[in-house]
Amino acid sequence: MSVFPEPLPDLLLEPVVRLALLEDLGRAGDVTAALVDAETRLRAAFASRRAGRVAGLACARLAIQALDPTAAFEILIPDGADAPAHTPIARVDARARALLTAERTALNLMCRLSGVATLTAAYVGAVEGLPAVIVDTRKTTPGLRALEKYAVRCGGGVNHRYGLDDAILIKDNHVAAAGGVAAALRRAKAVKGHLTPVEVEVDSLDQLAEAIPFHPDVIMLDNFTLDDLRRAVALTRAGAGASIRLEASGGVSLQTVRAIAETGVDAISVGALTHSAPALDIGLDAE
Amino acid sequence: MSVFPEPLPDLLLEPVVRLALLEDLGRAGDVTAALVDAETRLRAAFASRRAGRVAGLACARLAIQALDPTAAFEILIPDGADAPAHTPIARVDARARALLTAERTALNLMCRLSGVATLTAAYVGAVEGLPAVIVDTRKTTPGLRALEKYAVRCGGGVNHRYGLDDAILIKDNHVAAAGGVAAALRRAKAVKGHLTPVEVEVDSLDQLAEAIPFHPDVIMLDNFTLDDLRRAVALTRAGAGASIRLEASGGVSLQTVRAIAETGVDAISVGALTHSAPALDIGLDAE
Amino acid sequence: MSVFPEPLPDLLLEPVVRLALLEDLGRAGDVTAALVDAETRLRAAFASRRAGRVAGLACARLAIQALDPTAAFEILIPDGADAPAHTPIARVDARARALLTAERTALNLMCRLSGVATLTAAYVGAVEGLPAVIVDTRKTTPGLRALEKYAVRCGGGVNHRYGLDDAILIKDNHVAAAGGVAAALRRAKAVKGHLTPVEVEVDSLDQLAEAIPFHPDVIMLDNFTLDDLRRAVALTRAGAGASIRLEASGGVSLQTVRAIAETGVDAISVGALTHSAPALDIGLDAE
Amino acid sequence: MSVFPEPLPDLLLEPVVRLALLEDLGRAGDVTAALVDAETRLRAAFASRRAGRVAGLACARLAIQALDPTAAFEILIPDGADAPAHTPIARVDARARALLTAERTALNLMCRLSGVATLTAAYVGAVEGLPAVIVDTRKTTPGLRALEKYAVRCGGGVNHRYGLDDAILIKDNHVAAAGGVAAALRRAKAVKGHLTPVEVEVDSLDQLAEAIPFHPDVIMLDNFTLDDLRRAVALTRAGAGASIRLEASGGVSLQTVRAIAETGVDAISVGALTHSAPALDIGLDAE
Amino acid sequence: MSVFPEPLPDLLLEPVVRLALLEDLGRAGDVTAALVDAETRLRAAFASRRAGRVAGLACARLAIQALDPTAAFEILIPDGADAPAHTPIARVDARARALLTAERTALNLMCRLSGVATLTAAYVGAVEGLPAVIVDTRKTTPGLRALEKYAVRCGGGVNHRYGLDDAILIKDNHVAAAGGVAAALRRAKAVKGHLTPVEVEVDSLDQLAEAIPFHPDVIMLDNFTLDDLRRAVALTRAGAGASIRLEASGGVSLQTVRAIAETGVDAISVGALTHSAPALDIGLDAE
Amino acid sequence: MSVFPEPLPDLLLEPVVRLALLEDLGRAGDVTAALVDAETRLRAAFASRRAGRVAGLACARLAIQALDPTAAFEILIPDGADAPAHTPIARVDARARALLTAERTALNLMCRLSGVATLTAAYVGAVEGLPAVIVDTRKTTPGLRALEKYAVRCGGGVNHRYGLDDAILIKDNHVAAAGGVAAALRRAKAVKGHLTPVEVEVDSLDQLAEAIPFHPDVIMLDNFTLDDLRRAVALTRAGAGASIRLEASGGVSLQTVRAIAETGVDAISVGALTHSAPALDIGLDAE
Repeated sequence: MSVFPEPLPDLLLEPVVRLALLEDLGRAGDVTAALVDAETRLRAAFASRRAGRVAGLACARLAIQALDPTAAFEILIPDGADAPAHTPIARVDARARALLTAERTALNLMCRLSGVATLTAAYVGAVEGLPAVIVDTRKTTPGLRALEKYAVRCGGGVNHRYGLDDAILIKDNHVAAAGGVAAALRRAKAVKGHLTPVEVEVDSLDQLAEAIPFHPDVIMLDNFTLDDLRRAVALTRAGAGASIRLEASGGVSLQTVRAIAETGVDAISVGALTHSAPALDIGLDAE
Repeated sequence: MSVFPEPLPDLLLEPVVRLALLEDLGRAGDVTAALVDAETRLRAAFASRRAGRVAGLACARLAIQALDPTAAFEILIPDGADAPAHTPIARVDARARALLTAERTALNLMCRLSGVATLTAAYVGAVEGLPAVIVDTRKTTPGLRALEKYAVRCGGGVNHRYGLDDAILIKDNHVAAAGGVAAALRRAKAVKGHLTPVEVEVDSLDQLAEAIPFHPDVIMLDNFTLDDLRRAVALTRAGAGASIRLEASGGVSLQTVRAIAETGVDAISVGALTHSAPALDIGLDAE
Repeated sequence: MSVFPEPLPDLLLEPVVRLALLEDLGRAGDVTAALVDAETRLRAAFASRRAGRVAGLACARLAIQALDPTAAFEILIPDGADAPAHTPIARVDARARALLTAERTALNLMCRLSGVATLTAAYVGAVEGLPAVIVDTRKTTPGLRALEKYAVRCGGGVNHRYGLDDAILIKDNHVAAAGGVAAALRRAKAVKGHLTPVEVEVDSLDQLAEAIPFHPDVIMLDNFTLDDLRRAVALTRAGAGASIRLEASGGVSLQTVRAIAETGVDAISVGALTHSAPALDIGLDAE
Repeated sequence: MSVFPEPLPDLLLEPVVRLALLEDLGRAGDVTAALVDAETRLRAAFASRRAGRVAGLACARLAIQALDPTAAFEILIPDGADAPAHTPIARVDARARALLTAERTALNLMCRLSGVATLTAAYVGAVEGLPAVIVDTRKTTPGLRALEKYAVRCGGGVNHRYGLDDAILIKDNHVAAAGGVAAALRRAKAVKGHLTPVEVEVDSLDQLAEAIPFHPDVIMLDNFTLDDLRRAVALTRAGAGASIRLEASGGVSLQTVRAIAETGVDAISVGALTHSAPALDIGLDAE
Repeated sequence: MSVFPEPLPDLLLEPVVRLALLEDLGRAGDVTAALVDAETRLRAAFASRRAGRVAGLACARLAIQALDPTAAFEILIPDGADAPAHTPIARVDARARALLTAERTALNLMCRLSGVATLTAAYVGAVEGLPAVIVDTRKTTPGLRALEKYAVRCGGGVNHRYGLDDAILIKDNHVAAAGGVAAALRRAKAVKGHLTPVEVEVDSLDQLAEAIPFHPDVIMLDNFTLDDLRRAVALTRAGAGASIRLEASGGVSLQTVRAIAETGVDAISVGALTHSAPALDIGLDAE
Repeated sequence: MSVFPEPLPDLLLEPVVRLALLEDLGRAGDVTAALVDAETRLRAAFASRRAGRVAGLACARLAIQALDPTAAFEILIPDGADAPAHTPIARVDARARALLTAERTALNLMCRLSGVATLTAAYVGAVEGLPAVIVDTRKTTPGLRALEKYAVRCGGGVNHRYGLDDAILIKDNHVAAAGGVAAALRRAKAVKGHLTPVEVEVDSLDQLAEAIPFHPDVIMLDNFTLDDLRRAVALTRAGAGASIRLEASGGVSLQTVRAIAETGVDAISVGALTHSAPALDIGLDAE
């Protein structure tokens, strides 16, 4: 895991931050701001009420600077690092009106992304020392996929495909429609692009055996028992599939993930990383 | 509570659904779709793996019809009603390619919104028979505020302000900047629009007493103990503030909410409704 | 009235200014600009051909700086203040090509907004010394609502609701559909959000009497005679409605507004402020 | 004049109508709509409170159909025709909620455009029988230029250039920068596109004489006295400029326009057509 | 090769078609359309002046139906098939004004995409019978990448990566920055996502030998002589790299491509497919 | 020809550059960038592999500065000038990651626009010394019309109309629909705007004779033989049409263009300038 993952360029973050700000500003802007003198500056720090993994600082910075281009934003604990409770993560110095207006947008983004990173880090921690990586899914928040997948990386996870266009992932419905695993894989090889990876979901050891000769990049073992996962690993590694990656999927929780990793699979995909991570409770405290 | 809340017009939902679809389609669209015959139709039903409150059916319909305008979508359990586990919520009949391509977008929206509605319904259920209503906050997902606030209504909750522009909400920083509760309220009355509501956050009974004579529409009692909440209710109802609504805020959980409601407050605001609701696990099953 | 009203953040103005500039630039940009040397700078001043109330300086600044980020823009008479005829309101120093290209967009916005502010100031002046405030309506220019409502504030007016979502305003058709004033107000109270204000339009003293017990925030007295307005004020103030605000509407002109205000109503709404204000004739004069 | 001018395609109108609707709907949509039963339909007619020239019916139709695609919209008095007071212009049959929600947007567009058409028709009527046409300017509402110029055509007027890119219009500042009328025209001929028209503004008969030999398509006579206009016409027609069109500009009002037209100029440009036309007072009456 | 490649969903095509139409319509729409009677319908056929491979019919259909939703559009020679010269490819029946207005947009898209498909088909034909596939590059027209890559598929080509985010492609600058081929590949494996393919560009047989042990998905042989290409194939197939795909790049033309393919490489990438394909000369002929 | 044509304002270029960048960045951004150290800077130069006319430098600058606002960009050979092969056109100094990420977008735009300029310059050179100008058409790349027309100017060409709204161009279908050339021109004069130019396409000397008395601004001689072009010039110049411009169209190539120009026509329109110009092969070389 890279503690400090490659950040997304501002160009990709700005439309999201802008949409979020405009959603909060509405038509008339912050009607409470008039209670604060226009010249007042405010110095404040972001801190979490409980320990967690940080993600999303650039969003907070962009939200504040969208309203006050002169705002200073100093990062103390960067994305991908662990923040203890009640410890400054970043410090900001800005016009008070701009800061109070941007505060909720900045926090909404940071709390959600840090929540995703924190839950991911918990899963990654639970499999420490084992070869399996924790990967995310497409069960992300509409409009925030790139940001949430970045947060997964901040948590030490690894990204699965980004959408419907960057990998062929053959699921049960496709298998049924194509007339079996072999037929589906044969057709996938025929239509795929020069670099398009191919993954197939299998529900049984029989389907696994059918898939291995086609050398897909990844085989997803969906809802396998621990015993069957072990058998699947043995079956695949034994023969021609040594270089195929195996991904366990389904029924994964913080309680079960280590046992799954111990079966020897290469990756474990967890939808909850993005669809059910509670927000990390970060606040902005005036100093 | 209205079991079947007024739906948002498609005109407001379409940009969100479209953004979500395009995010999943990427540049090249669904590269796995080619495994399914172009003419095949699919009939499938949405059902939840556990009981929950439904919200977001229109989003699912729009996602599917964006790819297949001829798709039929029949609602069996409408938004705002309770869905038992493993029971069809809606049935769809569409081109198989379109349905498989739109499936994840439809589910991502429905699962999140139904998750919000389900958590809200739990809070609303916890205070049943008491006058207090459950209200949401601005701690929503960037880009989805209107949809999540609608989901809160589906759960029986009541919406707080939609953003920074439709109510003056005087928080501690504003009070500090304005020089006290009285000064802040006086200025708020002077600058507010014809219909702009005014709410003030107070941290103590002293601040409450200072606020009452200005007759704000709502006073938020932030992090009050149960005893202080009771005293606040008594103080406000006794005097000139009989028509002021009191909102309890801070430290609210499913364990504590009934005791808070029993103090006699009019409303209890709960950020977790939108920032930490786990997704409801809805799937789409071919029939 | 605040002489210098809280400005809208640039973030809300920029899309409007950008749209206006692109509309004027078309596909090919300013084809006359080539007649001016690329290096030439121009110093010019905005001034009105007749006295009026200023509004919209930020729009002019943004239009010019969109084409020349180095342009200097000095405000001499700010938004919300009165500009005598032929007196510099603001001074600009910019690349000549950029200034000539942006000139019409800057003026179109400033002339319109100052026109609204000037007409509003005339109405506000006409009721000077009386308690009634002048409020605007939703009869605004498509795309410019936030700016025109800001211009109303520059003129000393007070903003009515911003749109269909920030207040319940029960009109005659709603009353008819709901089965009477009482039924409509009862339903409004049941479905309204935590902070949503409620206003009802009444056409007669009978309807007024029916509305008062429901304590809406505002009652609009539509097309009442002066005598009936006086009776309405007496009736409302006498009883339980002391805190309800009364808004007179219909048939308001600069000739009639003072007599209306003298009846004791709290507010007078005037659609003409935004739908029929003549532009203030501001020009940009090279110095 | 064409009584029924070529309509703008819906593709150009839809973005404007959509922007206007979204501006009114805000985040939450029409919160008063819940007072009306979802199934109720409403039949209503557009009618003006005073006689005027109709423009903008397509906008009204698009606004209503954006919320109720099944709405019927029957035109009785088309764009470009005169509507007597209190006479149905169009009749609509739609879901009541959709109609009440779209009503203000539909009216805001129709009232403004019909206001422009009505004022234009007054100017056109004032010069009846004379060869001069009434032309508009770029002093239009930001975002509405194409619609307002269409409204001018509905009023019998003729459109001037649409923006900075479809004609070279050499104004006083350009003349100054280029070093005189002749130099400016020489340079314009050198840089202009294959079809780009050239117009030059002159302030005196001397400048006019300087311009004629370059055969610009149009010469604008800015703020000329009636006597000088007559001299300008004679001077131009006498010599090589017989085919040059002459446009009078400045100081034009309904009182002065006929005298100006009688000087023999080809066109009279009037900024007030679009920057100061009062809205036509059209309403929507339930039937 | 699939003769009839999976079409892009209309949802991805519509924004491009709409942008193209609005670019042609400008502010005022088709000012020549008024010369045609509004009720006239026109029946016409698309046909090419020379033989070519068809691509982009859906764009033509969408352009016409955007202006006339009732237009009929019948496909005679589908995307991916060969059209002889002067033979109807598709037939359209629409309102004459709409068809004449949309004609140029429809043709601009079809001619360009069919040009790309035709050139691709020429390259594919030149390597017929050999295992090498023809792949495209990122040298596409800004805004049209997905459409041009679809056109490549229509021509029988295979798509390379869609952009910077769906594959790691290590070029010479990356190799230099990372400190050599081995170091770059080691780092790529460490940071890549679960399914991210890895390709590396090598300039020499030495670099190739350095790359093979890291088993990238593809190795690009940049500007290799034919002899070196043969040696590269032998070196790679001989050892551990049997499953690595080899891509030849640089100096490819219709004259050289067959010889390159005969070296045994798996793929040949050709930038000219998209950056220099002449348009296919398709016209729309009234019938 | 102006060697250094008036540049388009950044405001018009930015949306195109941004769209192109986002298309290349996709959802996740440049996943190869992580191989380069975040702090590394790179100095590089744009140079063409063959001699050509430069166009589009501002696009390259904007693409790079969108990712690194601090990037320095020095122009050595400006738009509209000739670049020898292998000679630095511009030099850039930027963060290495930003530069490598923006490189393809910058080049895609510059190569295409310089390709258009280079082909245009070839046509312009071929008619050197003759009065005919080379004009473009509407056969441009969707989304890039303004940029490609600017590139034509960089090549010494002259722009034809920009779209359907800035000139009436009567084509054969319009003539047929209107009932002949005379009828079409009569109607065009009646409906045209104050400054709208009128051009008519004629297919024969008879049609030409019919058109001359209506004095359109331009007559397009479509697919005339050289003999007929000469006759057309004589016929038009002899009589009342001395000031009408004649445009030859159809069958124009670098081989035929000089002979066409020698017939005495004023303009020759060439669709290939924009629809079939091969890209100029510009690269970015690290220094």
